Amino acid sequence: MSDTGSLDALIQALRRLPGVGVKSAQRMAFHLLQHDRGGAEQLSQALARACEQVRHCERCHTFTEGAVCDACLDPARDATRLCVVETPADQSAMERTAAFRGLYFVLMGRLSPLDGVGPRDIGVQKLLERACDGVVQEVILATSFTAEGEATAHAIAEALKRRGIHVTRLARGVPVGSELEYVDLGTIAHALADRR
Amino acid sequence: MSDTGSLDALIQALRRLPGVGVKSAQRMAFHLLQHDRGGAEQLSQALARACEQVRHCERCHTFTEGAVCDACLDPARDATRLCVVETPADQSAMERTAAFRGLYFVLMGRLSPLDGVGPRDIGVQKLLERACDGVVQEVILATSFTAEGEATAHAIAEALKRRGIHVTRLARGVPVGSELEYVDLGTIAHALADRR
Ligand SMILES: [Zn+2]
Ligand SMILES: [Zn+2]
Repeated sequence: MSDTGSLDALIQALRRLPGVGVKSAQRMAFHLLQHDRGGAEQLSQALARACEQVRHCERCHTFTEGAVCDACLDPARDATRLCVVETPADQSAMERTAAFRGLYFVLMGRLSPLDGVGPRDIGVQKLLERACDGVVQEVILATSFTAEGEATAHAIAEALKRRGIHVTRLARGVPVGSELEYVDLGTIAHALADRR
Repeated sequence: MSDTGSLDALIQALRRLPGVGVKSAQRMAFHLLQHDRGGAEQLSQALARACEQVRHCERCHTFTEGAVCDACLDPARDATRLCVVETPADQSAMERTAAFRGLYFVLMGRLSPLDGVGPRDIGVQKLLERACDGVVQEVILATSFTAEGEATAHAIAEALKRRGIHVTRLARGVPVGSELEYVDLGTIAHALADRR
């Protein structure tokens, strides 16, 4: 339909969202134009504004609108502990525990040789400089407990240890609230080995 | 994080898309800002442009950028047959069969009393006027074969028949390529009753 160029363009643009195929993109475009034009305009403006405003913190690499993020600027935080996470979402999860009052470094990814994501793409050099500022005494690796997250943690740990930095890793173990019967065997084995 | 207002606003705006929860919205925002700012800007512009340009065809109610859509303006089409579908996506599916050369009326929805969608919301009055233009000889109901689609077809058929319009419905039957063993019993029963 040649008279629906801007509708077709919208469907194509929606397909660039992760996890959105052609059917979902059609359904989204239809919903917005038929039932929620206010939502479409809001999303258009939010996208433009975020592209304009959001950049990376100079110290921890997370998303921020200033040069340095609020967490890095907070004098109440313990600057001797640096927690390394993969994404801002992981950082939020850690914050919600209220169990950590140190600072963060956000990799914005993880090593993934198959996808061509190497140490440079996740800012490892920047992390090394950050961790060697003379204030940081412990780097806590909180990357995912997946193959890629473990490989990332391992590579960073090796590099930091060569520079004499004390490195720790989140404990592996049985999730709180789990019945042992339903926990996978690898997790149980780790929980046994790391018993305390 | 108070320094990420425009990121939070983007996540909220993405949640207005159908089928997108808070986790998906976070993942989409993260992906766009980290890996595809070009895509974010493209989507922003496509949304704004579609909101500005896309409206409903005066004759068939589908999405178009002119007053009347290309299909309704096409003199090669058979104006004596009018096919009633629920959405532009259904209309596209019908077009791809290349088996129909008549005109369309797009309801942009279906009757759904539980969701408060009544005859007025799907333009039934407009359809009745359209079908009684003196040219249309047959109205083919191609709404979904779901409870709501069937109720919609039934309500429209009754109204059209009262006005003396000849109404037909797409045949129900066994899908092409199906093995009978795997077809649901209701479909087989209908295929038997409608055998030819
Ligand atoms: Zn920071
Ligand atoms: Zn039309």
